[in-house]
Amino acid sequence: MKTLITSFAIIGLSAQLASQEVARQSFFKAPTGSELIAADLHIHTVFSDGNVWPTIRVDEARREDLDLISLTEHLEYQPHKRDIPNPDRNRAFELALRHRKEGEQLMVVNGSEITRSMAPGHINAVFIEDANKLMVDDAREALVEANRQGAYVFWNHPQWEAQRKDGIARLEPWHDEVIKAGLLHGIEVVNDLTLSEEALQIALDRNLTIMGNSDVHGIADWQYEIPEGNHRPMTFVLASERSPEAIKAALKAGRTVVWFNDLLVGRAEHLASVFEANLRVEPLKYEVSPLIARVVIHNDGAQDLTLRYTGPYTFHAHTNMFVVPAHGSIELDVKTLESLEKLDFPVLVENSRVAPKTPASLSLKVTK
Amino acid sequence: MKTLITSFAIIGLSAQLASQEVARQSFFKAPTGSELIAADLHIHTVFSDGNVWPTIRVDEARREDLDLISLTEHLEYQPHKRDIPNPDRNRAFELALRHRKEGEQLMVVNGSEITRSMAPGHINAVFIEDANKLMVDDAREALVEANRQGAYVFWNHPQWEAQRKDGIARLEPWHDEVIKAGLLHGIEVVNDLTLSEEALQIALDRNLTIMGNSDVHGIADWQYEIPEGNHRPMTFVLASERSPEAIKAALKAGRTVVWFNDLLVGRAEHLASVFEANLRVEPLKYEVSPLIARVVIHNDGAQDLTLRYTGPYTFHAHTNMFVVPAHGSIELDVKTLESLEKLDFPVLVENSRVAPKTPASLSLKVTK
Amino acid sequence: MKTLITSFAIIGLSAQLASQEVARQSFFKAPTGSELIAADLHIHTVFSDGNVWPTIRVDEARREDLDLISLTEHLEYQPHKRDIPNPDRNRAFELALRHRKEGEQLMVVNGSEITRSMAPGHINAVFIEDANKLMVDDAREALVEANRQGAYVFWNHPQWEAQRKDGIARLEPWHDEVIKAGLLHGIEVVNDLTLSEEALQIALDRNLTIMGNSDVHGIADWQYEIPEGNHRPMTFVLASERSPEAIKAALKAGRTVVWFNDLLVGRAEHLASVFEANLRVEPLKYEVSPLIARVVIHNDGAQDLTLRYTGPYTFHAHTNMFVVPAHGSIELDVKTLESLEKLDFPVLVENSRVAPKTPASLSLKVTK
Amino acid sequence: MKTLITSFAIIGLSAQLASQEVARQSFFKAPTGSELIAADLHIHTVFSDGNVWPTIRVDEARREDLDLISLTEHLEYQPHKRDIPNPDRNRAFELALRHRKEGEQLMVVNGSEITRSMAPGHINAVFIEDANKLMVDDAREALVEANRQGAYVFWNHPQWEAQRKDGIARLEPWHDEVIKAGLLHGIEVVNDLTLSEEALQIALDRNLTIMGNSDVHGIADWQYEIPEGNHRPMTFVLASERSPEAIKAALKAGRTVVWFNDLLVGRAEHLASVFEANLRVEPLKYEVSPLIARVVIHNDGAQDLTLRYTGPYTFHAHTNMFVVPAHGSIELDVKTLESLEKLDFPVLVENSRVAPKTPASLSLKVTK
Repeated sequence: MKTLITSFAIIGLSAQLASQEVARQSFFKAPTGSELIAADLHIHTVFSDGNVWPTIRVDEARREDLDLISLTEHLEYQPHKRDIPNPDRNRAFELALRHRKEGEQLMVVNGSEITRSMAPGHINAVFIEDANKLMVDDAREALVEANRQGAYVFWNHPQWEAQRKDGIARLEPWHDEVIKAGLLHGIEVVNDLTLSEEALQIALDRNLTIMGNSDVHGIADWQYEIPEGNHRPMTFVLASERSPEAIKAALKAGRTVVWFNDLLVGRAEHLASVFEANLRVEPLKYEVSPLIARVVIHNDGAQDLTLRYTGPYTFHAHTNMFVVPAHGSIELDVKTLESLEKLDFPVLVENSRVAPKTPASLSLKVTK
Repeated sequence: MKTLITSFAIIGLSAQLASQEVARQSFFKAPTGSELIAADLHIHTVFSDGNVWPTIRVDEARREDLDLISLTEHLEYQPHKRDIPNPDRNRAFELALRHRKEGEQLMVVNGSEITRSMAPGHINAVFIEDANKLMVDDAREALVEANRQGAYVFWNHPQWEAQRKDGIARLEPWHDEVIKAGLLHGIEVVNDLTLSEEALQIALDRNLTIMGNSDVHGIADWQYEIPEGNHRPMTFVLASERSPEAIKAALKAGRTVVWFNDLLVGRAEHLASVFEANLRVEPLKYEVSPLIARVVIHNDGAQDLTLRYTGPYTFHAHTNMFVVPAHGSIELDVKTLESLEKLDFPVLVENSRVAPKTPASLSLKVTK
Repeated sequence: MKTLITSFAIIGLSAQLASQEVARQSFFKAPTGSELIAADLHIHTVFSDGNVWPTIRVDEARREDLDLISLTEHLEYQPHKRDIPNPDRNRAFELALRHRKEGEQLMVVNGSEITRSMAPGHINAVFIEDANKLMVDDAREALVEANRQGAYVFWNHPQWEAQRKDGIARLEPWHDEVIKAGLLHGIEVVNDLTLSEEALQIALDRNLTIMGNSDVHGIADWQYEIPEGNHRPMTFVLASERSPEAIKAALKAGRTVVWFNDLLVGRAEHLASVFEANLRVEPLKYEVSPLIARVVIHNDGAQDLTLRYTGPYTFHAHTNMFVVPAHGSIELDVKTLESLEKLDFPVLVENSRVAPKTPASLSLKVTK
Repeated sequence: MKTLITSFAIIGLSAQLASQEVARQSFFKAPTGSELIAADLHIHTVFSDGNVWPTIRVDEARREDLDLISLTEHLEYQPHKRDIPNPDRNRAFELALRHRKEGEQLMVVNGSEITRSMAPGHINAVFIEDANKLMVDDAREALVEANRQGAYVFWNHPQWEAQRKDGIARLEPWHDEVIKAGLLHGIEVVNDLTLSEEALQIALDRNLTIMGNSDVHGIADWQYEIPEGNHRPMTFVLASERSPEAIKAALKAGRTVVWFNDLLVGRAEHLASVFEANLRVEPLKYEVSPLIARVVIHNDGAQDLTLRYTGPYTFHAHTNMFVVPAHGSIELDVKTLESLEKLDFPVLVENSRVAPKTPASLSLKVTK
């Protein structure tokens, strides 16, 4: 029997090594003075209505180069109960944490999904200490307990068509009250395969943190077509350092940018800081002619960015809308009509949103 | 010696067969009642300053599924003269025509580039009868002769930085006069790797035909990265039928759309007709919920189209800007708030231009 | 609460539909008169030491176009017991079967892994009726019970280095006895990422069925690099029809071919029948010259086949070893020195094995 | 007019820069003490029956990372004579040489194809001084003159079906005589899309240098599917240094290896030296078990190598035939039955030929 256990351990080890071989990468350069933490804070396993063991979630997160996950099992919805009695709602977290390797970049924090019909709907509490204590009759009481544990709390998929027939996210008096009471800190603008512009407006109106999470139940690779080059929905947290405390503080302060398919969503100042950190401009040159400037823009991030130039000039080979490819660059020949020492280059990032229908704007400075 | 000739003929034949194996495809569906002729009317070979034999241009055009080419050698610029005396300026055309196969889709018409410093710069005459007769001292006289032969005549790269230091296309009195005299019919808005929004404005202001051509001198595959999935610049002519006469008439009538990288440029009515022919909408369905419409848009063309929805609704999984992939489709869940019988779906095609900085607009009609 | 259940059901449904969208394909053409059943009969889930819920195994099998799977949980090794008490060893099968859709191509049969240290090591019984009855002290008794239930029984990874330090598969007296008693019918020559030529020799010597299975514990896509174009190890069963009874009969009769990476392993007659069904030859032509035959061989299967021609002729563009690409073809110009009416074309399939170090041989008949 | 010339010069320059951007790579590591010169010594342009200007051949060679080319126009076959009178048969070489950049890796040497019906057929002389002097009535006299100029001389496509109806390369008395006289030094075993095992046997029997060349007439990318990852046929010369003299000496000494599709052909000692330089073995380890050796073989070359192990052991996950991918590696678990200090690992390289139907053999030494 000992032999048997040893042999299974060997198999487990080789699987671990395989997953380690994938090199760690960050998706975007962090703005100076901050870390950019790639987080997915809404995930399920067999310990509620998901279909994989908690260790798989850790393996997925490593392969996808995430920095932080939380397994947020439904406290009240336990469809596998017959097979998995699950008396301790911290169990999924424990199994994931044990699978994490000492010192590895990926962090795992405890979390839970408080699961009700609307209102309030579904609410995630992460950075909690004991999930079992959140299992109380009254949902507001669960939020009070989560906050007592120091949790970061956000409203999940407020537009979910199973709870909102018209798919429109809107606040009920219940939500109004807990926001005012400081018990609810964030709101999912992106959940799984969906996006809610109404939720984005609520986040802006009520000063809630903008969140985007996977809410994955099955295999992440299948749901988000990751082998084909896509990525799961995630939230980049602009934290002062790589620690759970700093990340939680940043989340409560609303410092996030959400990545969903080819879209980046966030508050204007956060999106601008991320774009400024990732759009790098070469010195201004006049090569083709002394009247035509060569502007080279590098994109150091993992997302193609569609820029719309809003200044006065025209280009020699492009319209005012063009793409700077991920980890690539574009050369623009700008017809400046004279030889300039410096060039203000204002752009909108068309595949970003700082508010419904509103892209981020920034001005690149190009100097000799 | 006879044996030798036979054996070389065999080699030639097998090369021909190889090129035939590439199946004929059209890039975009033609609007009802018209043919969409993919044309490149600005091409060079060793018979002026190009670097390949005329037959290669025919082979390239076949491989790239073009419908029409013209080899437009510089009449006055003959840098290979020491090796190729070229006494007959129709020679490149003759060699290309002989390489064309009876009945094949690709058409080849005679053409020439009248080559002067600015003004007038470079001017192409295509659908000509005898290139030699265009070799006259006075450039205007060359245009008169070209028109006498029934030619379609257009101004090449009016913004060329070798002739316009600031890269800005602008009319000289010379051009004004020949346009008014009906001797000049079109203008290149796209040439090789460049695009001129000023040239587009001139085309609109002076009612000139919008042209886009390669002006290829070397290997087209290298210059336009065709094996990597790109295409050469080309002009789609909206002709009443697949004949040189009909195509020439359409060119003179200004019925063109230019394809340059991911951009489509043309007059508003022509772009709209092409987009309407290629954007196909499935019947309106309510599946997810009776209040959320499923709109499926198919793109039957070869170019990804970036659409901006300008109507009042929001979507369940997209912002108002989204891509309909080439030969693919997109599913949009539109939050219509009620169950509609029909839905007007107004869009801008962001990667198109009907005027400087102005995308094409159209309204898709979605009905049950 | 009812609302909640409904909404989860909707999510489940959409996931099912997504998996259905993958079109059904067969890997190889079946020899005339038989069906080629792609089977994986060694699979684990959270109900023993695997890491996914049984439904995921059904989803994987659908995506990979398998025809038959069996979840073969360790009866005696239950490392998740603390969380999953698993009192009924048929439970994983039941959950998988419920996830299968009425009438779909994929079949699921009940199975179990009888798990002992060597000898006897690990033994799978599939097509069983009640897994619980196999949980008896004596391993031989478990085999007797499995056979009483009509099971097909095979020896797993007989070379497993955890049980065989030198990695060499060899029979113990225990195995000898149960083979003679008719209680053990097959042997894994391929398991997971390994292959045992010694096991192949045992299969041939003792008339055991040649098996290849995944023994997957984690995510199949990761373990076998399926998105990158590879496949899991599988056994093709040459059955008279698509029914569990016919498949079981074929397994007991030894009619299998194993597919492992780019290798096909089986008895000579079975491999030859599969290759003959998938290597299709065009009529003999003399085109290049009346003395050089054009032989075109099509490969209708999913595996590139490396052929070695063993006849007397040489080729005009290939050596005697060449690859016929999967779903592709090769043209060989054979210097026959005269114009033949028919041509025998004997080949070895180098990426196949009918015995250790011995490739399959067959003779293609090429006629005018 | 001056302006005009300047502007064309600018275009030419930018094309040159573009071609420079492709980084220089070598295909295979050179054996210690030698350089591996990638050469194509059989190429045509418009100056005989090819279809591109000589500069394109230089551009192609740069893009394909060749070290040495020679434009070998037919002296006697001039189908473009009407347009290109070509009074000086050194002209193509001059134009190519002028397009070469001082100090660049690519070398260009003068050459010509002496073109006769069989016998003698077609013969290339490269490293010549003056092509015009080779235009003499008697073919043998042309070889004498070529040798007087110090040329390296080889027989082209001796199996060409236009001159050999059965496609079989065979020596005529004429060839016998010039070989004995030391006037003919090599023979094409590979030409364009063809391979002649009979020519290989002649090379071995008569001590001729084994050659493989493209004989390209059209666009190399199309003929050899280079953008799809293939390469043109080429000859690697094992020269003592990167100079024309050293390369010529190596050619005359027969030190070559030919690369044709996935095949490498050469004399046993040359192929072995190239494989030894490119197959790198990691130190012997015992990891999985003290009885199973881990052998890791790296392939530092650009060609996947199909190895057949001919030693006594079996492997844990492979048969005795396996592929070491180009610029990749393979891990083999070798069941050595005991823990060895060193392991002889004899292999055949199945996609190589040292004689008809005979692969190269070598023995890798694996030590702790």
